[in-house]
Amino acid sequence: MSDEIGGKIKALVFDVFGTVVDWRSSITREIKSVGKRLGVEANWEAFADRWRAGYHDGMQAFRDGTDVWKTADQMYRDRLDLLLAEHSITSLSEPETEHLNRAWHRLDPWPDSVEGLTKLKSKFVIGTLSNGNVGLLVNMAKYGGLPWDCVFAGELAGSYKPDPKVYLMATNLLGLEPHEVMMIAAHNHDLIAAKKTGLSTGFVARPDEYGSGDRKPDLHAAPEVDVAASDFIELATKLGV
Amino acid sequence: MSDEIGGKIKALVFDVFGTVVDWRSSITREIKSVGKRLGVEANWEAFADRWRAGYHDGMQAFRDGTDVWKTADQMYRDRLDLLLAEHSITSLSEPETEHLNRAWHRLDPWPDSVEGLTKLKSKFVIGTLSNGNVGLLVNMAKYGGLPWDCVFAGELAGSYKPDPKVYLMATNLLGLEPHEVMMIAAHNHDLIAAKKTGLSTGFVARPDEYGSGDRKPDLHAAPEVDVAASDFIELATKLGV
Repeated sequence: MSDEIGGKIKALVFDVFGTVVDWRSSITREIKSVGKRLGVEANWEAFADRWRAGYHDGMQAFRDGTDVWKTADQMYRDRLDLLLAEHSITSLSEPETEHLNRAWHRLDPWPDSVEGLTKLKSKFVIGTLSNGNVGLLVNMAKYGGLPWDCVFAGELAGSYKPDPKVYLMATNLLGLEPHEVMMIAAHNHDLIAAKKTGLSTGFVARPDEYGSGDRKPDLHAAPEVDVAASDFIELATKLGV
Repeated sequence: MSDEIGGKIKALVFDVFGTVVDWRSSITREIKSVGKRLGVEANWEAFADRWRAGYHDGMQAFRDGTDVWKTADQMYRDRLDLLLAEHSITSLSEPETEHLNRAWHRLDPWPDSVEGLTKLKSKFVIGTLSNGNVGLLVNMAKYGGLPWDCVFAGELAGSYKPDPKVYLMATNLLGLEPHEVMMIAAHNHDLIAAKKTGLSTGFVARPDEYGSGDRKPDLHAAPEVDVAASDFIELATKLGV
């Protein structure tokens, strides 16, 4: 079944935060380093989780119609300002705060990401399809050596996944039928929405995304997902690369 | 002056047809090969030039308000159908005609393009900023090994260069000030429009773009252009790579 699927697929579009990069370890490391320098003690993993939650809250406010569309950069900055105030961190200059906010542009890829993407790129067009903004995704690719052919983001449709128009924006820009494009994610809710929109779907398990935090990862693909793999290298094999 | 400019620039966006790829030789080769197979004789360089003119005419019709926005794929297909009929070529199947139209996705880079872009990529974000559609540009990059960090096109703004909103779309998506982005082109009209919009500008001479055709290349940069080079490798040197 996988060979058959791999044969009709022309492009793969990837969720990024959690699927391609390990945001929680990277963000915790950066904020912990700032805390240490300033002599502040805190649960920095919890800081990272709450910072991340600002992104989800910002997107939900847009979906609910209670806020305008914002870039990930803006949503992270809004939450960062609140968290810094709450931790009584007031000594950072504006450039220092902005540099810290850009920690989301400096996220480490999972160990298999670059090798797996490079393999997949030999057979397929590979691109992002993230709710992060384009500039963030481009800078992250430079930082981590992610070899994208193209960078697509909810920003290009003025919305966020799981809005169907975000998935269709990518397939239309590529000039492909939805089923010729496979959405790759570690999150079943993203894949189920992509599938409903007509895309093919591939699940990659990222059991460590949330570390010891409250949120639990999807350990297995939902039944309607077309292909499931333990990492990008196994995904390449399953797609006939 | 160039070192100073290279220091403040963060991203380079490139015109593609003529600046990065040699469309005329590539298109002439493909259409000549089809003509030979079908036993048709014609001036195939002139065919290529008239096919290319369909793209310029289509964009002008949009600017004049006499036609809707179209992808480059559509504009090339419209003109191809006319040219095939004029040459009494009626034996191509629909898939064969569509494959021929996709010749614009299979354009050879100029000899210095891949090496020069690879050098420039080590210091700058590099992307397209073309009036070609995204899918065409992505496929062309795969075909020619063009190592773009991102693929921007007039399509993302629903317009064509030299509309200022196309240049500003790219700088906004990158999260950069216009002057931090340098437009690179072999065509002064493109650079002058980018400059008026606030971008930095770099000219690269492509004296062979139009071959022996009627259209004449810009051999030298316009006075307002910031940097001029004979190819992408010299451009890299001039920008401090």
